[in-house]
Amino acid sequence: MDTVNIALIGDGFMGRAHSNAWSQVGKFFDPPVRPVLHTVCAREADKLARFAERWGWQNTSTNWHDVVTSADIDLVDIATPNDTHAEIAIAALKAGKHVACEKPLANTFYAARQMRDAAREASGKTSTWLNYRRCPAVAYAYKLVEDGVLGDITRVDAAYLQDWADKTVPLIWRFDNEVAGSGTLGDLVAHVIDMAQFVTGELITEVAGAYLKTVIDQRELQTGDAGGGIAADTERTAERGKVTVDDTVAFTSLLSGGGVATFQGARQAWGNENRNRLEVSGSKGALRFDFEDMNVLWLYDATRPRGVRGWTRIMCTHAPDHPYVDNWWPDAHLLGYEHTFVNQSYDVLLSLAGQEPTVPLPDFEDAFQTQGVLAAVQQCAESRQVVPLASVE
Amino acid sequence: MDTVNIALIGDGFMGRAHSNAWSQVGKFFDPPVRPVLHTVCAREADKLARFAERWGWQNTSTNWHDVVTSADIDLVDIATPNDTHAEIAIAALKAGKHVACEKPLANTFYAARQMRDAAREASGKTSTWLNYRRCPAVAYAYKLVEDGVLGDITRVDAAYLQDWADKTVPLIWRFDNEVAGSGTLGDLVAHVIDMAQFVTGELITEVAGAYLKTVIDQRELQTGDAGGGIAADTERTAERGKVTVDDTVAFTSLLSGGGVATFQGARQAWGNENRNRLEVSGSKGALRFDFEDMNVLWLYDATRPRGVRGWTRIMCTHAPDHPYVDNWWPDAHLLGYEHTFVNQSYDVLLSLAGQEPTVPLPDFEDAFQTQGVLAAVQQCAESRQVVPLASVE
Amino acid sequence: MDTVNIALIGDGFMGRAHSNAWSQVGKFFDPPVRPVLHTVCAREADKLARFAERWGWQNTSTNWHDVVTSADIDLVDIATPNDTHAEIAIAALKAGKHVACEKPLANTFYAARQMRDAAREASGKTSTWLNYRRCPAVAYAYKLVEDGVLGDITRVDAAYLQDWADKTVPLIWRFDNEVAGSGTLGDLVAHVIDMAQFVTGELITEVAGAYLKTVIDQRELQTGDAGGGIAADTERTAERGKVTVDDTVAFTSLLSGGGVATFQGARQAWGNENRNRLEVSGSKGALRFDFEDMNVLWLYDATRPRGVRGWTRIMCTHAPDHPYVDNWWPDAHLLGYEHTFVNQSYDVLLSLAGQEPTVPLPDFEDAFQTQGVLAAVQQCAESRQVVPLASVE
Amino acid sequence: MDTVNIALIGDGFMGRAHSNAWSQVGKFFDPPVRPVLHTVCAREADKLARFAERWGWQNTSTNWHDVVTSADIDLVDIATPNDTHAEIAIAALKAGKHVACEKPLANTFYAARQMRDAAREASGKTSTWLNYRRCPAVAYAYKLVEDGVLGDITRVDAAYLQDWADKTVPLIWRFDNEVAGSGTLGDLVAHVIDMAQFVTGELITEVAGAYLKTVIDQRELQTGDAGGGIAADTERTAERGKVTVDDTVAFTSLLSGGGVATFQGARQAWGNENRNRLEVSGSKGALRFDFEDMNVLWLYDATRPRGVRGWTRIMCTHAPDHPYVDNWWPDAHLLGYEHTFVNQSYDVLLSLAGQEPTVPLPDFEDAFQTQGVLAAVQQCAESRQVVPLASVE
Repeated sequence: MDTVNIALIGDGFMGRAHSNAWSQVGKFFDPPVRPVLHTVCAREADKLARFAERWGWQNTSTNWHDVVTSADIDLVDIATPNDTHAEIAIAALKAGKHVACEKPLANTFYAARQMRDAAREASGKTSTWLNYRRCPAVAYAYKLVEDGVLGDITRVDAAYLQDWADKTVPLIWRFDNEVAGSGTLGDLVAHVIDMAQFVTGELITEVAGAYLKTVIDQRELQTGDAGGGIAADTERTAERGKVTVDDTVAFTSLLSGGGVATFQGARQAWGNENRNRLEVSGSKGALRFDFEDMNVLWLYDATRPRGVRGWTRIMCTHAPDHPYVDNWWPDAHLLGYEHTFVNQSYDVLLSLAGQEPTVPLPDFEDAFQTQGVLAAVQQCAESRQVVPLASVE
Repeated sequence: MDTVNIALIGDGFMGRAHSNAWSQVGKFFDPPVRPVLHTVCAREADKLARFAERWGWQNTSTNWHDVVTSADIDLVDIATPNDTHAEIAIAALKAGKHVACEKPLANTFYAARQMRDAAREASGKTSTWLNYRRCPAVAYAYKLVEDGVLGDITRVDAAYLQDWADKTVPLIWRFDNEVAGSGTLGDLVAHVIDMAQFVTGELITEVAGAYLKTVIDQRELQTGDAGGGIAADTERTAERGKVTVDDTVAFTSLLSGGGVATFQGARQAWGNENRNRLEVSGSKGALRFDFEDMNVLWLYDATRPRGVRGWTRIMCTHAPDHPYVDNWWPDAHLLGYEHTFVNQSYDVLLSLAGQEPTVPLPDFEDAFQTQGVLAAVQQCAESRQVVPLASVE
Repeated sequence: MDTVNIALIGDGFMGRAHSNAWSQVGKFFDPPVRPVLHTVCAREADKLARFAERWGWQNTSTNWHDVVTSADIDLVDIATPNDTHAEIAIAALKAGKHVACEKPLANTFYAARQMRDAAREASGKTSTWLNYRRCPAVAYAYKLVEDGVLGDITRVDAAYLQDWADKTVPLIWRFDNEVAGSGTLGDLVAHVIDMAQFVTGELITEVAGAYLKTVIDQRELQTGDAGGGIAADTERTAERGKVTVDDTVAFTSLLSGGGVATFQGARQAWGNENRNRLEVSGSKGALRFDFEDMNVLWLYDATRPRGVRGWTRIMCTHAPDHPYVDNWWPDAHLLGYEHTFVNQSYDVLLSLAGQEPTVPLPDFEDAFQTQGVLAAVQQCAESRQVVPLASVE
Repeated sequence: MDTVNIALIGDGFMGRAHSNAWSQVGKFFDPPVRPVLHTVCAREADKLARFAERWGWQNTSTNWHDVVTSADIDLVDIATPNDTHAEIAIAALKAGKHVACEKPLANTFYAARQMRDAAREASGKTSTWLNYRRCPAVAYAYKLVEDGVLGDITRVDAAYLQDWADKTVPLIWRFDNEVAGSGTLGDLVAHVIDMAQFVTGELITEVAGAYLKTVIDQRELQTGDAGGGIAADTERTAERGKVTVDDTVAFTSLLSGGGVATFQGARQAWGNENRNRLEVSGSKGALRFDFEDMNVLWLYDATRPRGVRGWTRIMCTHAPDHPYVDNWWPDAHLLGYEHTFVNQSYDVLLSLAGQEPTVPLPDFEDAFQTQGVLAAVQQCAESRQVVPLASVE
């Protein structure tokens, strides 16, 4: 296999990020197989044609089923709203395709399990765009923990906070439970749950004290399609509708190693524009990451002499010590958001060629586990009881 | 009343901080009544004599009961281990004294309620050394929230983390439930619970998902008296004993205004030497405070034009805008830990003279409310049920 | 003109950055003319062929003269070592081409003046890749100063420090005065001189107290071609040769508005990986920028009420307030180093279409002025006299 | 000698800081000799009486000459305006007293030399209140450099910037060359010159490119005595007078080890309330200090493995590793501005008892050397020539 023919489903915000990834990976990396931007698929033909031309997709289609079953396609990349992931992914897997799916895996635990089951039976390889694993700083954190630099993990403090969703934002699809499945929980907290489990190498075993609140519970209705943007500017009406997803999340939990973890999420927490942050405490040291300074990892190494001990601000842009950056620019010539997708596309290509990715890729098995945590949070918030992960069905 | 005769009970770490406060307040402030360092009381006569001479206490005693009932004394300042607060405070209140007591109020909810009840019936004024309210930055945060700068409070993220208590620290009294009543919870989290309620002007109405863990559950036994220091260096034996208090705390909660609050605490979280931190999100902005940069308050004012909006780092050392600092030094000639006690002693003296303190003093009523939260956390951790504050008895 | 045929001269580090810019600009922006990656030109045919394929250049050539005079080419983009800029640029200008040239303009003041003169007589438009102007945060700083937010400029503190060039780095071309023309001065300080003049809207009128030092003055000789990378890893010999350029720079200067400016540069200042930083003080406020946190601009607005006044950390990723970012990602989905080149390529295309660039482009006139400052620094360091810019010849 | 009888001359801002130091040192430290606050001397008897009572001085006098020659006095502590230092200090030295003098040593180089000469011939010990040496973080920086942690010093970037002196501040004594001798240069930059020389263990050997500017050159006249405060609020008239000292300073220089150093100072640089900052680069690492976060020292250790290398934020509050803090509070229970004076008073007492101070005390010899740098800066600014220190007379 020299090339991989890719079909991208979705031409919204994430379709753009993925297109860029497939387009850039061959320029900055030397992947063992070459990605071909074969077909992009979406509903509106006109918009789709412009999208394809801009990003260099060779073909377009408005029928995803034809595309994911086409003999020409090797990998199906799913970048559609959450309620459509399961149907597309399962069809693609049954057709023998590899699948790279946006997160969260699905908008219900049931659908996610079906996807996981389909993946187990399929020949294709699966992955999920939990792209923050592929910030060099996060991938390096994973390696440090794996190397034992932190010792036993005793504590995690994780949060994913944004502030775009103030009361002036209209009722876009992200506020509609039917389409999105959840709000802050699935959109943001899912990322940091994955990141916490990935970096620590541990799993969440129970969820407690969960609050899922909708602080802004009424929003202006909009007309027309809001697209896949985070808060696309569309026409609005004076009428207001009900927000049916959470915007504020908090819960505590236990890790498989016995540590205590706290999680928070919000979409209207002023001053947190894209604060996907993690602090991990261990018996020998600690780590801190904050996406708003994404090239940096803070390390506290408690084995250093006490006089010079402190938080060290590591600029994770030095090759070959820090993952991925050998392919980019010199020291402190910073990387940005989109690079996490390019890095992931490289790892997907490595994986398709039978090679080890730089750091583990989250497959449907992993993403299903994360979906289980999301389900546990929802059950905990409703029942006001501690929910062991093992009990989630 | 021109002067206030003070009796300090306790000559340990906190006795030192309080002695310094009473000694400094008249030099930097102009209190309406002058504090007289009348008597200091502790158990070991020799050590006490040296302490009294160093700090300028006029008299010493090893019998606290005599002291707190003496006609010479106006104010009893309690800086002894937690298990002794109630008996001393109640005796002092019954004797008609004003009482300034270290926190937490007591080591049981029951004892705290007795103190609160005694305060209700007494003529003396009570206060608790929840000294962090009196960082100028925290007092200013209180004023900003009171002025409506944050709008409605939607979210609190609070933590008090230290890292002195690694496994090499022996079994001092702070690890003994009999004496301390609790560990991280009462020693550290009590402060940040008070700070969160103080700054927001709201109360915690229920506690959920509480974990009280003892990560390091065995420590070397020591011989001799460890004194009141945080981790006094004493002789040790090879033998190990059981730690009977928590060292790691996490819980979620609801605020009276409907916001969600997360609390964390730990004594062995590497890299957090004295991280008493608070982030408050509101509908119009947000605030952040971290004691490790205690002169600074971060404000995010969401009413500013979007282009220049951001977190503003306010150095809270400018008189007269920032509380207390008029009495100290010029701009950015920083204050330290001990100044919070001096500031509080000034407010206590204002209060005794019938004047308004700079910002509200936490009396026994307030401290009892905080003690109720501590009790709710303990009940929640044991029962694994959500605990409404109203149900705590 | 619908399209612009581009010829890139050079396939090293900067050739890569420019290729990426021309390739990405059409995907993220809607330029009024479409860039065509027509021809890339360099010396080694094999390496060049691989470069062209990777980046999508349609043609290759090893004869730059043929290329820059070809009727097929509209814009010549020069990314070769500094000693070759003048010859190529002048030939291209004489052939009626537009020219986009890497900085510094030339390796001598004399050559730079020839280029400036050629530009004055030519029909083509010129620009220089002083790319840091096109960090959104820097472009926004320019706009704030232009809008009078800082009042009168009284003081500038500027530095460009790196730390890659420790003593283990061999004698690559960047240490050879014949090729590079200067060391830290032309490579790094040139950027921050331009940035300081750009942001303040003022010019340097005299240079004083200049030191141009070579701290590490002997380095291992290398064999083979080191390429255009910053410190390409090549074979070395045990023999050592003399470094003929500066590695440490410091000088003071006056601005046209009367303010005092300090400049520093170094290539082996540990802990400064790519610290291109600027602080500007004015009568009404101040600004700070540091490329190592390149998405952020710090603003101190002294017209704000004193109590809430402080340094505001502005995340310059909000459209439409902050330049360029409308074309990229949502708030705080950070941009990186390479985006500055894409942003510049967009402005070059605007300019070619007769439209205003987002913020002013540095043309050869501007770059020649900067070159004059470099010459003044060299004259000042040699003569140990204050050098007025007007006296530089 | 069990006690040292101290005479303080001056009851302004610095008189207050010194009084506090002598008062606190015996409480927090165990000095080998006990300081006695014997006599305070100033011009206005009423104000002086209140000052003495507040700070516990046993006697007062309005005749400094009587005081410094009194047989009762052991140590004369000079905290008067700069133009009076020489006369008082020389009289005290001639009377056989120890002298602790505020900085700068004098307001002319000539007067400073007389003081240095008097010290050489006297039996008393001299010291200068260059108090910033005694921030634990600065003292620790000194020790790290002395231990070779930075290797050879190649570069210093130093600045002392404040922003209190905007145009609304009236013409207080600090703006009057007759009294103050200089403005920003002697008041602020003197501190950071000392700090740079102290930490590096090197001396400045020449001064170049000096600018001494008066950006705000007219200020409102005031009536009455402004006292010794930084910007005491006094009655003003509408009339304006000329500022006769500098407010903005910049120069470059060489260090005795060959490194290049840059210095800046200003009193109206918005956003820099008390930014006394220093960055030192060496062949093996680098250090950074900023008084606005005074408990912290940043260390970049280039001998650490590259992957985990970075700036380490050391909270310099850990005993016994960090100087002085054993006498204060636990980890990260921060110290403030006034503690630097207490620490210095302890070292003065050690020195009087014939013991080594914690880190070297700046005596009149050292302070005279700093005064020579100030003189060189003034000569350089006037002559616009490089000024070797050896040539200053």
